[in-house]
Amino acid sequence: MKNVIKFFGCVTLLSAIVSCGSDKKNGQGILDTDVASKVYVKPGEHDEFYAFLSGGFSGQVSVYGLPSGRLLKVIPVFSQDPEKGYGYNEETKPMLETTHGFIPWDDSHHPELSQTNGETDGRWLFINGNNTPRIARIDLSTFETAEIIEIPNSAGNHSSPFTTENTEYIVAGTRFAVPYPQGDVAINQYKGKFKGVLSFIKVDPQTGRMNIEFQVLMPGFNYDLAHSGKGASHGWMFFTTYNTEEANTLLEVEASQNDKDFIAAINWKKAEEFIKEGKFKEVEASYMHNIYDEHTHIATSTKQNKVKVLSPEECPGLVYLLPTPKSPHGVDVDPTGEYIVGNGKLSTDLTVHSFTKVLKAIEEKKFEGEAYGMPILKMDEVVGGIVKEAGLGPLHTEFDDKGFAYTTLFISSEVIKWKVGTWEIVDRQPVYYSPGHLMIPGGDSKKPDGKYLLIMNKITKDRYLPTGPELTQSAQLFDISGDKMQLLLDFPTIGEPHYAQGIHADKIAPKSVKYYPLKDNKHPYVVRSDAEAKVVREGNIVHVYMGMIRSHFSPDNIEGIKVGDKVYFHVTNLEQDWDIPHGFSVLGAQNAELLVMPGQTETLYWEPLKAGIYPFYCTDFCSALHQEMQGYIRVSDKNANVELKWSLGEE
Amino acid sequence: MKNVIKFFGCVTLLSAIVSCGSDKKNGQGILDTDVASKVYVKPGEHDEFYAFLSGGFSGQVSVYGLPSGRLLKVIPVFSQDPEKGYGYNEETKPMLETTHGFIPWDDSHHPELSQTNGETDGRWLFINGNNTPRIARIDLSTFETAEIIEIPNSAGNHSSPFTTENTEYIVAGTRFAVPYPQGDVAINQYKGKFKGVLSFIKVDPQTGRMNIEFQVLMPGFNYDLAHSGKGASHGWMFFTTYNTEEANTLLEVEASQNDKDFIAAINWKKAEEFIKEGKFKEVEASYMHNIYDEHTHIATSTKQNKVKVLSPEECPGLVYLLPTPKSPHGVDVDPTGEYIVGNGKLSTDLTVHSFTKVLKAIEEKKFEGEAYGMPILKMDEVVGGIVKEAGLGPLHTEFDDKGFAYTTLFISSEVIKWKVGTWEIVDRQPVYYSPGHLMIPGGDSKKPDGKYLLIMNKITKDRYLPTGPELTQSAQLFDISGDKMQLLLDFPTIGEPHYAQGIHADKIAPKSVKYYPLKDNKHPYVVRSDAEAKVVREGNIVHVYMGMIRSHFSPDNIEGIKVGDKVYFHVTNLEQDWDIPHGFSVLGAQNAELLVMPGQTETLYWEPLKAGIYPFYCTDFCSALHQEMQGYIRVSDKNANVELKWSLGEE
Repeated sequence: MKNVIKFFGCVTLLSAIVSCGSDKKNGQGILDTDVASKVYVKPGEHDEFYAFLSGGFSGQVSVYGLPSGRLLKVIPVFSQDPEKGYGYNEETKPMLETTHGFIPWDDSHHPELSQTNGETDGRWLFINGNNTPRIARIDLSTFETAEIIEIPNSAGNHSSPFTTENTEYIVAGTRFAVPYPQGDVAINQYKGKFKGVLSFIKVDPQTGRMNIEFQVLMPGFNYDLAHSGKGASHGWMFFTTYNTEEANTLLEVEASQNDKDFIAAINWKKAEEFIKEGKFKEVEASYMHNIYDEHTHIATSTKQNKVKVLSPEECPGLVYLLPTPKSPHGVDVDPTGEYIVGNGKLSTDLTVHSFTKVLKAIEEKKFEGEAYGMPILKMDEVVGGIVKEAGLGPLHTEFDDKGFAYTTLFISSEVIKWKVGTWEIVDRQPVYYSPGHLMIPGGDSKKPDGKYLLIMNKITKDRYLPTGPELTQSAQLFDISGDKMQLLLDFPTIGEPHYAQGIHADKIAPKSVKYYPLKDNKHPYVVRSDAEAKVVREGNIVHVYMGMIRSHFSPDNIEGIKVGDKVYFHVTNLEQDWDIPHGFSVLGAQNAELLVMPGQTETLYWEPLKAGIYPFYCTDFCSALHQEMQGYIRVSDKNANVELKWSLGEE
Repeated sequence: MKNVIKFFGCVTLLSAIVSCGSDKKNGQGILDTDVASKVYVKPGEHDEFYAFLSGGFSGQVSVYGLPSGRLLKVIPVFSQDPEKGYGYNEETKPMLETTHGFIPWDDSHHPELSQTNGETDGRWLFINGNNTPRIARIDLSTFETAEIIEIPNSAGNHSSPFTTENTEYIVAGTRFAVPYPQGDVAINQYKGKFKGVLSFIKVDPQTGRMNIEFQVLMPGFNYDLAHSGKGASHGWMFFTTYNTEEANTLLEVEASQNDKDFIAAINWKKAEEFIKEGKFKEVEASYMHNIYDEHTHIATSTKQNKVKVLSPEECPGLVYLLPTPKSPHGVDVDPTGEYIVGNGKLSTDLTVHSFTKVLKAIEEKKFEGEAYGMPILKMDEVVGGIVKEAGLGPLHTEFDDKGFAYTTLFISSEVIKWKVGTWEIVDRQPVYYSPGHLMIPGGDSKKPDGKYLLIMNKITKDRYLPTGPELTQSAQLFDISGDKMQLLLDFPTIGEPHYAQGIHADKIAPKSVKYYPLKDNKHPYVVRSDAEAKVVREGNIVHVYMGMIRSHFSPDNIEGIKVGDKVYFHVTNLEQDWDIPHGFSVLGAQNAELLVMPGQTETLYWEPLKAGIYPFYCTDFCSALHQEMQGYIRVSDKNANVELKWSLGEE
């Protein structure tokens, strides 16, 4: 096994599939210019698909256009973003509050679009924070993070936030087992004292608001990934496990001892019945729930304290375990909902369970034992098929609309295409290098759009111009409309994308908000015209009600600020037009800037440290007289006799 | 004038120059597939040029490949970057120290490559911080920020850091005049009490280290942009000014009263003589000088206190003023060094000064007066040519290698090509929309590489799929190898690029460092093998000497940490291979992650707040057993009787 591990990165010196010369034919008889024109989106024309890629260790979501691979926007989610002032301005700081205090970073893993009837609907995008367990919801009309909820009894929220087919629930499974309840426990008491909790988060169908409906208390395994049932299997959620050995040290060896780990199948409709019957335990468990108000554009953070926990021992029929070989990583459900693909990352085969067989085995009690009170189904009774000799290190599978599945092979740096039902591999292409997730728009829903396949690679080495020791990670776009997968494009990514979601532009673009109506702005410190600008002192707190519009600030000269004051600049962008943001910054402020969209108010906090003159200016080039859009603040010593005054910048 | 300002954004509804259909001819008789293949870099092949674009309000530098427009890397410079831990880990925090304290953000404007003999040499990239006046130097062998120097007596470091032809100096001109010396001065005493200082920063030719050599004390104008002389004009630096009215409020009106502002021509060779002669005043002026040590990978911040200031009144021949119409923004010098182009942003013509004529006018004392002791040259005596009817809002000019210049027109959203010497406009193309800077690789040096032209636009509106109120800004790539400019590609940018530098890949790629040799690692808390890992307590300070290598940490279980401890994780990546970074994060840490390159050590600081078990893991998917690369820290109450112990994760 060690050899296998050390192997990666070396087996991938495969030849490029396209040849040199701009109009030569490549090995597949396709003109390179044809390939080029397949990804070329002419200046001013639009991409056909949005792709939402997680930023991984960036903590954000990046939005790309496909097929061009152009980065359209980085949406700040779990990490501070100095560019947009996210996590720095007073309005968004509460978004990053947790029970551990303000945390400026997380590791964002799996974007998941909301679904209606098993199809992506373009309303919301959910994404998990892997380090400090959280889920965020992004509003796809504004492309802003609207809500973040912390997951209690959890540590490392990895198998998350996969949705059910009507976004009834999104889920969160802890990657790391931790003491239940949390506390000072010796690490060698892992087995027994450490538990893994799987959370079901209810989503309000109107507002999208998340609430933790219940948790399922599972043994101290590691929970890796999940996907929901659909169609016939709607009502079930499947989680992969690893480290069923329950090792607490040197997992690369100790957690790879068992020949099989499990896919945990949770019947959440049954869970709802147990909840109704009161078979839960309400436990003390603190977590934060942060909401960004769409009218005030101010986030608030509220501490919650209780969750309902279901215990499988007390809820028969809630959980079944499906034995799955070799540390399964991804678990992916085909569009019909019949097949559940387990990708055993140390296996060379793919194990596909049949949901029909699972139900039958349950009915006929075909168990090979139990673990912590949960029946283990006999593997032979539930396997619907095996994709043999898939390759080394299978990780993830997505589906097209023609009955095919596509699986990444991390170690052998390949993607394979195989037929669901016959399990026959029909195509195999090299990728560069070490692919993790892959994505087909709608590829984990009931209605995949099988035109493009996106592969997200972990290693790039020589694929791009070098940039020192740190290299970009990379996506590769394939055309999958034909029999064979055709590599079209390599494009670099922000951070490390762990998963992606794609959706046709028609489902989002028409609803995209262009600016915020000033009349709807409910921010308590809004100004709606230059004339409303003012400076108000309350003790040593100073509120500056500021407006900005091409090409001036009101006020633009401020005097009477003292060293030791706590100054809040509440800055409203008075524009009511598309694509006219203004920025605001103060020389020497221990803060980021504000980047304020038309109709919005944002607040920059500043404690001036010494007397002097401090310029401020617009940071977003907004007009031919942008350079003139500036002002001065005079700061005097604490006891200086300088009156508060300001000049309106209005014309 | 006001109408002109309001005009922008409306005049740009020009038709796209390429037609629909992938093999149709466009209006210029060029096949679209030809255009596509001109920007298509086949998977695995490399771009021909590096382009370094400033991030503007992002505070960073983004590195793109041309012609593909692919984003290869974001280099953190002036802003915290949670993705890389820059500005969060202990090693890089000192990089963001200023005399105003730790500042997590700046507005990065003008990247400038180092030059040798007037040609870009690929050694360093300099960039200015516009908000809190600073200059950074990036090492182009590692693509990391190596040094940041603060500029005293300055506010808004905009006209910076343009280099002389052997990188003798880079410059920094204050955008905002401020009291000299800084202090509590009424804003209405602007005229007289406020000054503008131009700084000359010496660059060590071996190490690249920056030091402020001298400053020139100028009147309280706003200093906008700069470029150095070259060839015949080597030894001179040219700065544009605006607000020579010295207004302090409502500048969009008040600073546009004068028909002409000035280009200030500074003879820095003469300045060196004045310095030698002792004609400077050494003044108290605090600033920070931050250096990232290449052996320890630790930054240190040192406060400096004195600068030498030259006063034009006392140094005759140091400064001459060239009258230039209508608030000149960019000032650009042609490859021969003879022509100095002033782009009056409220003019429709471009004013081109002749350096030969400037020298002659100085010699013959053709002055039309003086300002604050500086001779104003007669405009008629120094103008070498006028590019007439250029368009509305000319901002910036770059040059090719065939005697042509290219100028952006912000208000009329165009780029023009004109002949240096005849001043004839030979081509004009629409751009989308509101272009600011433009860039030709080497286009501000003596040796432009005239294959591509990059336009950086301020507004995109409908050019890409919408992303809510906040839209990307955008670059447009033109082929300028023929007579007419041909639009090839639109690609989105990070933040707002204010300028860019381009360079052929051959000047950088071969020198790019692949990893840091562990044997050269001089970090005081380095470990060079798993066996050296340990945990050391010093009172309530705990140092964790940690190693990481595929696929484990050493130590991976730690006990005996107490609430109230100050824990430093010093994490060394033990890999010695290209593109194998590891990451490190701790659940609930009020910090970003560490992203550690092979051979490097980085330090994460953590104050645990409550007893419990805290997992940590590798945040960068590094091997098939990456998910197993994890560990646990046990935190006990302050007075708990738990001994410090740890388990080495070595195999």
